[in-house]
Amino acid sequence: MSAWRLVEDPPPPGDGGAPEDDRAGKRRGPSTRRLLVVAATVLLTLVGAGGLAAARSGAFFAERPEGCARPDRSMQLYAVELPKDGTQIRLGYGLTPQTASYPGPTIEMTEGECVAITLHNLVPAATLTQLRTDPAHPLGVSLHVHGVKYTQLSDGTVQSGSFVPPGESRTYTWFAQQRNRKTGSPGTAGYWWYHDHVVGGPHGTQGLGAGLFGGLVVRRPGDPKPDRTYTVVFGDRQSINLRRGAAADTCDAQNPQPGPTCLVARKGEKVEFIVVGIGNDMHTFHLHGHSWADTRTGLVDNGQPFADGVPIIDNKPLGPGDSFGFQVTAGDSVGPGHWMLHCHMQFHSDGGMSTMLHVLDEDGAMPPGHSHHSHPANATGTTADAGQHQHN
Amino acid sequence: MSAWRLVEDPPPPGDGGAPEDDRAGKRRGPSTRRLLVVAATVLLTLVGAGGLAAARSGAFFAERPEGCARPDRSMQLYAVELPKDGTQIRLGYGLTPQTASYPGPTIEMTEGECVAITLHNLVPAATLTQLRTDPAHPLGVSLHVHGVKYTQLSDGTVQSGSFVPPGESRTYTWFAQQRNRKTGSPGTAGYWWYHDHVVGGPHGTQGLGAGLFGGLVVRRPGDPKPDRTYTVVFGDRQSINLRRGAAADTCDAQNPQPGPTCLVARKGEKVEFIVVGIGNDMHTFHLHGHSWADTRTGLVDNGQPFADGVPIIDNKPLGPGDSFGFQVTAGDSVGPGHWMLHCHMQFHSDGGMSTMLHVLDEDGAMPPGHSHHSHPANATGTTADAGQHQHN
Amino acid sequence: MSAWRLVEDPPPPGDGGAPEDDRAGKRRGPSTRRLLVVAATVLLTLVGAGGLAAARSGAFFAERPEGCARPDRSMQLYAVELPKDGTQIRLGYGLTPQTASYPGPTIEMTEGECVAITLHNLVPAATLTQLRTDPAHPLGVSLHVHGVKYTQLSDGTVQSGSFVPPGESRTYTWFAQQRNRKTGSPGTAGYWWYHDHVVGGPHGTQGLGAGLFGGLVVRRPGDPKPDRTYTVVFGDRQSINLRRGAAADTCDAQNPQPGPTCLVARKGEKVEFIVVGIGNDMHTFHLHGHSWADTRTGLVDNGQPFADGVPIIDNKPLGPGDSFGFQVTAGDSVGPGHWMLHCHMQFHSDGGMSTMLHVLDEDGAMPPGHSHHSHPANATGTTADAGQHQHN
Repeated sequence: MSAWRLVEDPPPPGDGGAPEDDRAGKRRGPSTRRLLVVAATVLLTLVGAGGLAAARSGAFFAERPEGCARPDRSMQLYAVELPKDGTQIRLGYGLTPQTASYPGPTIEMTEGECVAITLHNLVPAATLTQLRTDPAHPLGVSLHVHGVKYTQLSDGTVQSGSFVPPGESRTYTWFAQQRNRKTGSPGTAGYWWYHDHVVGGPHGTQGLGAGLFGGLVVRRPGDPKPDRTYTVVFGDRQSINLRRGAAADTCDAQNPQPGPTCLVARKGEKVEFIVVGIGNDMHTFHLHGHSWADTRTGLVDNGQPFADGVPIIDNKPLGPGDSFGFQVTAGDSVGPGHWMLHCHMQFHSDGGMSTMLHVLDEDGAMPPGHSHHSHPANATGTTADAGQHQHN
Repeated sequence: MSAWRLVEDPPPPGDGGAPEDDRAGKRRGPSTRRLLVVAATVLLTLVGAGGLAAARSGAFFAERPEGCARPDRSMQLYAVELPKDGTQIRLGYGLTPQTASYPGPTIEMTEGECVAITLHNLVPAATLTQLRTDPAHPLGVSLHVHGVKYTQLSDGTVQSGSFVPPGESRTYTWFAQQRNRKTGSPGTAGYWWYHDHVVGGPHGTQGLGAGLFGGLVVRRPGDPKPDRTYTVVFGDRQSINLRRGAAADTCDAQNPQPGPTCLVARKGEKVEFIVVGIGNDMHTFHLHGHSWADTRTGLVDNGQPFADGVPIIDNKPLGPGDSFGFQVTAGDSVGPGHWMLHCHMQFHSDGGMSTMLHVLDEDGAMPPGHSHHSHPANATGTTADAGQHQHN
Repeated sequence: MSAWRLVEDPPPPGDGGAPEDDRAGKRRGPSTRRLLVVAATVLLTLVGAGGLAAARSGAFFAERPEGCARPDRSMQLYAVELPKDGTQIRLGYGLTPQTASYPGPTIEMTEGECVAITLHNLVPAATLTQLRTDPAHPLGVSLHVHGVKYTQLSDGTVQSGSFVPPGESRTYTWFAQQRNRKTGSPGTAGYWWYHDHVVGGPHGTQGLGAGLFGGLVVRRPGDPKPDRTYTVVFGDRQSINLRRGAAADTCDAQNPQPGPTCLVARKGEKVEFIVVGIGNDMHTFHLHGHSWADTRTGLVDNGQPFADGVPIIDNKPLGPGDSFGFQVTAGDSVGPGHWMLHCHMQFHSDGGMSTMLHVLDEDGAMPPGHSHHSHPANATGTTADAGQHQHN
């Protein structure tokens, strides 16, 4: 076992990866290298197999990303098992064990901010064993995040050892790096998401499928704040937030409670969507009656000279891992109504991948009318599997 | 049956949809609510089952979107049955019953404009019955549009009751809302499309598959006008405008008639494409010899400071419901030629999802040469189904 | 056989392709037409069947695109057969026959530049015959390029006759056209690719699948230059550069050689990715720990007023034919590490569509640790076919 080293020999010609300019004069001295090998050997002796990779990494990698001298705030996050949906195991992240949900809590950061999130793995080892596809794969849950900065110790992967065995905890540090003209950093403001990367296999496929994901928004100082934020996750089996058909829209007409299965707003409210794709399928996200700019915020600052060239859209391709977001003014020009939000792939929407943005009038009223029962065939729940044979 | 009402209790924590700021002090008074319920009850008594949803909505929803005091112009649109393509039922929209086609007529608007379109459903009830997948689903056709503004009464959906039973008519009102710095509206200029949303099922899957779709372009005052506009719709079964192989390009070398199956221009002409995806499949739209900017218009205004960062592309992912457009100068730098336009998914193009942009010289001449017979295996028509087992 | 001619009759109404303005007064006179027909007839007599299409085109089409009075430089490119990968035939382009690879050499141009590339077809006719799906299809390889300008003689297609039979050579001329405010040309700077368009069938599906593709980057004067460039091609069967699992990342920890199967850099180096999609499947490209702007270069010029609205992303949909690129500062803020680069479609990454960007510290060091063996099940190579039944 040995340290990595990038030699400075030029690659063979025509290999598609010719370096144009190697920084000379920066060779690592042999003494430094020897020291590292020694350190690794010591660690290998000291730690057991379980914490091996983590310890190994810990010897080398920083705990916090550069720019985060110390976290501005800390959070507790709990990974728990939730009631099954039919035969499907469901897991969720929560700010408390009692409030875990899928999607998990939407996390909000501002550029420049650094957050330490301690993840507590409360998922029973037996459940994780059941989800495991390979007996050699370790048991655990993790937190992998898109967009913001983190070191290998917060990558949330098996190979970096940055996951949490059952009953244990681990602190992940995220840094919402700012734009920096000098370093060329483009900044990290945007609509992102976080998810497990280890349940079941090295890409967390089973963790994602069970519900371990949530939305993240990073704002810039001065960004307009919405009145409401909804995280909408399109996934396999024609699912929106892992539900479909009637289960995707459970709004009670008398007492609609905003949440993952009830998208509701009053006319004039600024409604923000965080849209995420998971699983194996491509989708197209479509919202009736409302459109948005294909920019970082979904908004156009009309004072800016290039605004005239920005595409305005109401339908956008969404693949696994993709995330985008936008704000709309609910009911702007179009008025109140039960506005469909669905995947525009026809066999997806026909299979129940459809919900509503219910826009009430300024007083909170909406007349009686069809609302969430647009898919009577699927009204019995989300466990029937009309989507076994995906073919988009 | 009761009116909707958004209560102002905060949602439970951790549900992914926490409102940050509810507008207080705007509760709807009980008298208003009682009035609505009474109105709804009266309507339920007065109207039959057929017009139920529409009448119900009509009691509450505005006929026209805000900003459209009254339509600037009106149009008649006819939905008719066209000759079958093999065994496939074909429907089309037309400005007259005699000129219906698939895609339907390209509609052009300018921001600020409001158009009233009266749709006449001439499709026989027997045909609509044949296309219906569920006997409980109502018979009708509709007009659902992307991008521009409309109220629930012009949504074109079953649940809003805004469709047209056989032999009847209905007026849809579209408003090409302008950008507005005060309200934050990004404007509605762009490349859009319109389509049926009710034939066969609640998402109009059978109507779309039969041909009920067309292109819409909304311009801003000052936008450059093209010399020619082509609407190109990529769909299932390797189809371009529902044709494939030899049927996708029927240009006559002696007398090419511009139209859905003959894309032709002279060198130097500004050719505009409205590109739309329908159905279940992802595609990638590729044009040989020409590229465009990934902006609202496909053009770059070189005077603008950000133009330097705009991606120039010649291949773009296109999912169902997506639409984009662009203008190119036919033959710019590359000269005249038979320039392929195809889906770049290999089994799609190999299956006949390929046509040509024929660029003649400035005098309208082109030498003899291979043109539209690049897929001899598919030359017999579009009804053979090489695409049953989609697997992109 | 006859010359093409665009008549100036208006198309029938409602056909979706109404020209708004035909340039009048430019009819081609009958004498010109007669001349072309005569020329074509003479050519048909003179040339054999093999060179037929080419000769025909040659009578009419320019050799070089407008703007390229003569090439600024010339290159030799060789198409050769490489050792089989299991039972898979492998072909590659190389600057010499000995250095052919898949992907082929990355080609770099600057806007305004014109390059003449002579392609030598060294692939045995027997191999091309084996790859052919239709005995009527001609044998040959070609060079079709995205983004830059070329005439029909450099289109690389069968129908234009611009391919290279076995044992022969052909010169293709590419022009990296500049932006031009007068003509409206958006310029050709961007991340592109080149590929065969004739091996096996009219879309080069077998040539692409065997390895005949490579990256192209066109820069604008003043664009920042990277320290390293990697071309990463996502394709069918969960492949990255046609490899998967352990074969996708063969970096030697002692002596990592940058190349198609070893993505490595030191912290602080500017690393450029050229990302290309081929084949039949959609993918999403995801890189851990690094993100980029969704602009032409992947960078944001912070001095520009619209930079605030540009989406920063770390995951992007990628369909066949698509290409994009970006530069990142290796390890910026996140430090050194084995950073995963994978398709985020879960069954793709689970099937081995995953590699690493190995970021060493400034001295070129990295501690021991898991690196490229994250997919033990696939460690035996890339020929096992876990991806026969694609269903994304």
